[in-house]
Amino acid sequence: MSEHISEIEKEFLDFVKKMQAYSEALGLIYWDLRTGAPKNGVEQRSEVIGMLSSELFKMSTSEEMAAYIASLSGHNLSEITLKTLEECKKNYDRNKKIPAKEYQDYVVLQSKAESVWEEARAKADFAMFQPYLEKIVEYKKKFVEYWGYEENKYNTLLDMYEPGITVDVLDKVFGELREAIVSLVQKIADSPNKPDTSFLFETFPKQNQKDFSLKILEQMGYNFESGRLDETVHPFATGLNPGDVRVTTRYDENDWRTAVFGTIHEGGHALYEQNISKDLIGTLLCSGTSMGIHESQSLFYENIVGRDFSFWKQNYDLLKEYASGEYDNISLEDFYRAINESKPSFIRIEADMLTYPLHIIIRYEIEKGLFNDEIEVKDLPKIWNDKYEEYLGIRPANDREGVLQDVHWSGGDFGYFPSYALGYMYAAQFKNSMLKDLPNFDDLLAEGNLTPIREWLTKNIHQYGKLKKPLEILQDVTGEGLNAKYLIDYLKDKYTKVYNLPVETH
Amino acid sequence: MSEHISEIEKEFLDFVKKMQAYSEALGLIYWDLRTGAPKNGVEQRSEVIGMLSSELFKMSTSEEMAAYIASLSGHNLSEITLKTLEECKKNYDRNKKIPAKEYQDYVVLQSKAESVWEEARAKADFAMFQPYLEKIVEYKKKFVEYWGYEENKYNTLLDMYEPGITVDVLDKVFGELREAIVSLVQKIADSPNKPDTSFLFETFPKQNQKDFSLKILEQMGYNFESGRLDETVHPFATGLNPGDVRVTTRYDENDWRTAVFGTIHEGGHALYEQNISKDLIGTLLCSGTSMGIHESQSLFYENIVGRDFSFWKQNYDLLKEYASGEYDNISLEDFYRAINESKPSFIRIEADMLTYPLHIIIRYEIEKGLFNDEIEVKDLPKIWNDKYEEYLGIRPANDREGVLQDVHWSGGDFGYFPSYALGYMYAAQFKNSMLKDLPNFDDLLAEGNLTPIREWLTKNIHQYGKLKKPLEILQDVTGEGLNAKYLIDYLKDKYTKVYNLPVETH
Repeated sequence: MSEHISEIEKEFLDFVKKMQAYSEALGLIYWDLRTGAPKNGVEQRSEVIGMLSSELFKMSTSEEMAAYIASLSGHNLSEITLKTLEECKKNYDRNKKIPAKEYQDYVVLQSKAESVWEEARAKADFAMFQPYLEKIVEYKKKFVEYWGYEENKYNTLLDMYEPGITVDVLDKVFGELREAIVSLVQKIADSPNKPDTSFLFETFPKQNQKDFSLKILEQMGYNFESGRLDETVHPFATGLNPGDVRVTTRYDENDWRTAVFGTIHEGGHALYEQNISKDLIGTLLCSGTSMGIHESQSLFYENIVGRDFSFWKQNYDLLKEYASGEYDNISLEDFYRAINESKPSFIRIEADMLTYPLHIIIRYEIEKGLFNDEIEVKDLPKIWNDKYEEYLGIRPANDREGVLQDVHWSGGDFGYFPSYALGYMYAAQFKNSMLKDLPNFDDLLAEGNLTPIREWLTKNIHQYGKLKKPLEILQDVTGEGLNAKYLIDYLKDKYTKVYNLPVETH
Repeated sequence: MSEHISEIEKEFLDFVKKMQAYSEALGLIYWDLRTGAPKNGVEQRSEVIGMLSSELFKMSTSEEMAAYIASLSGHNLSEITLKTLEECKKNYDRNKKIPAKEYQDYVVLQSKAESVWEEARAKADFAMFQPYLEKIVEYKKKFVEYWGYEENKYNTLLDMYEPGITVDVLDKVFGELREAIVSLVQKIADSPNKPDTSFLFETFPKQNQKDFSLKILEQMGYNFESGRLDETVHPFATGLNPGDVRVTTRYDENDWRTAVFGTIHEGGHALYEQNISKDLIGTLLCSGTSMGIHESQSLFYENIVGRDFSFWKQNYDLLKEYASGEYDNISLEDFYRAINESKPSFIRIEADMLTYPLHIIIRYEIEKGLFNDEIEVKDLPKIWNDKYEEYLGIRPANDREGVLQDVHWSGGDFGYFPSYALGYMYAAQFKNSMLKDLPNFDDLLAEGNLTPIREWLTKNIHQYGKLKKPLEILQDVTGEGLNAKYLIDYLKDKYTKVYNLPVETH
């Protein structure tokens, strides 16, 4: 019997390996499409994508898969098989519960909705997009019924991106975070100590930005024999396998921060994927465990490392070497304050690192309202603008800089946004734990010795891939569940210093 | 009945479309591996290649395929279906006739042989490679028995690369060609009018070589919205689909001809693939019809266009712009003679365009001898060197510059070499026919107007992909079969002028 099971286990792992091979091929095709595939080949390349994706989908919902799940469940399996099986079962259930015809109609709708959204955004015309968004939400609500839910319908959507996170958890932490940030934003608005940022916008040659970014990636411990840096309109990191994790960035010659902080951010994602245990290659576990944990790694590097004063103690002189003299008379302190400026703005992806979570919280509150029938699609523009006014003190002039700015909803990606802010909270919470092992954290940054930091993250987070669930990692690393306190403390401390705010007394 | 057949036909075409999608994905993976995939990802990428290739192989030899062949053969089908079915049947028969176990052993041997060959070549030690080559030849002979053959065993191998070409045909044309070239080589050796080539080896910055090459590609009519130019150690062109045909080149700052003529050569291959009829996308017919016809296109551009006097009338000033002054005092005539220098040399891929066919003919004679049991592997070094001495008047000092120089035999690719010289003959023969439609060929080159030339090639050759067999194209375009006369006339005419040889009298 057990010999029989071990045979099925082997077959199952081979089956999964094939799925993983298709995924890797797809990953490379997507990378290629974004980094310079010739325009006229795209149509036929889409056919290839369709073919491979549908093969992958078929395998994940096949009778073979059902048989593997049925025969292996409940048996004594290796940890890797067990977790891979869990992953497969989750996908199988999710995909099988929706009637095939409905899903096909939904996919067609999605693709139409995305192109309508693009046009609607260009014209700042929400009314044009509204009927499509209404249908998308309607489908998604039906899907939630098929999938089932516990306590709150929105929980099922959250679970897709951040397993274990629920509305109860988010209401608490986002509530605390919102209150703290809104208060800080108000104080900053009132502060007379605004940093001068004018010098950030002097021309900085693209090649120099690239050379500097490469130096920083190297300092972070990004392995160039397991990756490469390319240029794209929308920067991303993609882990094809731990030996091939590619990052891309975008260059703005009038604002070097786009490329440099962008590269550090994607580099943080990339370090995660490069350092997953090789034992997980070819399973379905060889990638970051969740959107939120992934974002914790990119934000850890972008902000907690990359916008830290000690980090620039080490790197400011290097930046000056690549710049064209505009920083020669700017002190490190003034430079540091400039790159940490905070100012309410409309566009999420351009937001500073203090106001950013408010953009997320607004989207969370709206999504939750939609799926609990408390908000209707037609009212979104007004609700959106009201919330921006309430939390950030600014009101979008039109829907392009308001409710139409993000692509996510046109693709039905509800439940995704919270991950961004969760990642930020995780990052601050990890930093707190890291300090117990590396109390000399600031010195390490100041020395440009980021190796112990990367090793700590690999040991505690990266290596596990999807072997551990996000909240399991959080618990194992920090000894507690999600706690907004760490990010709040970090933000208070940082922006109090940057803006020389009056220190709170209790 | 006919309705039933048309249903099966549709299913068959869908099946083939899927095979083609896997091929395209594989093509992109290979391109990526050669143009900059990170080293550490290669091992896992090989797994992906293995998975997709074996899927493709399984499909081509599947029971489904057998059923399609059985049910569709003999029925009234569209031309595309018919030719696709022929292609599938050919592959099916070829793959099914070899016992699976033998084929697997052979694949293992191949991969060992290739790495042994690499080491043997580095050490110039044929004895090391000999036992592997003997086994490869032995397997290949057995395969020929399985596949069957007509008249000559080597015909079966020729048929894999150049359907329709036989030993009878090659003996005749290669015999004529050899005689003519050997005689020209002798006359050139005796000629006092050797061109000065020293100026070709002045430093030419890589970026300038690239910019110049791009201008020439543009002039050729290479569509940059359907392709891109990258850098690799071994240049190649790859047609993923007609909208995505990529070329690569190599830069040598001390000899710009490597990059420029290499780019023109690969550009010639690329024009073929870019201009295949879109109707053939997704079938198995959407690529060049044979190795030889493919090579005819690259050699047509590299030599008949790219090393022509009129071509440089147009482009010599442009070259001077990108060079660093070393051509300012060199006349167009002297430049033209320099780039057409001919001098016997040992290494095939570095040979000039007169002696090149001799390198091929030597390999052809040896391969034919091996498969007809007239030559034994152990005698190859001596036979090789004797032939070089006889035809080219030079004798390799060791096996690295002799019999070990090419990778082909270690992979069992017998029958492939003749295509290179066939391509050259086809090219000269096409040129002759083209002159009837474009009698102003020289003027077109001198004006830099290569459009009518590309359009002629597209109309007569490119568009058909694999819809026509090589000899069918030759017959349709030139009204006759393979004829060595055109290449011989071309070579005599050209090198008589370049070396100011005494004109033959009859």
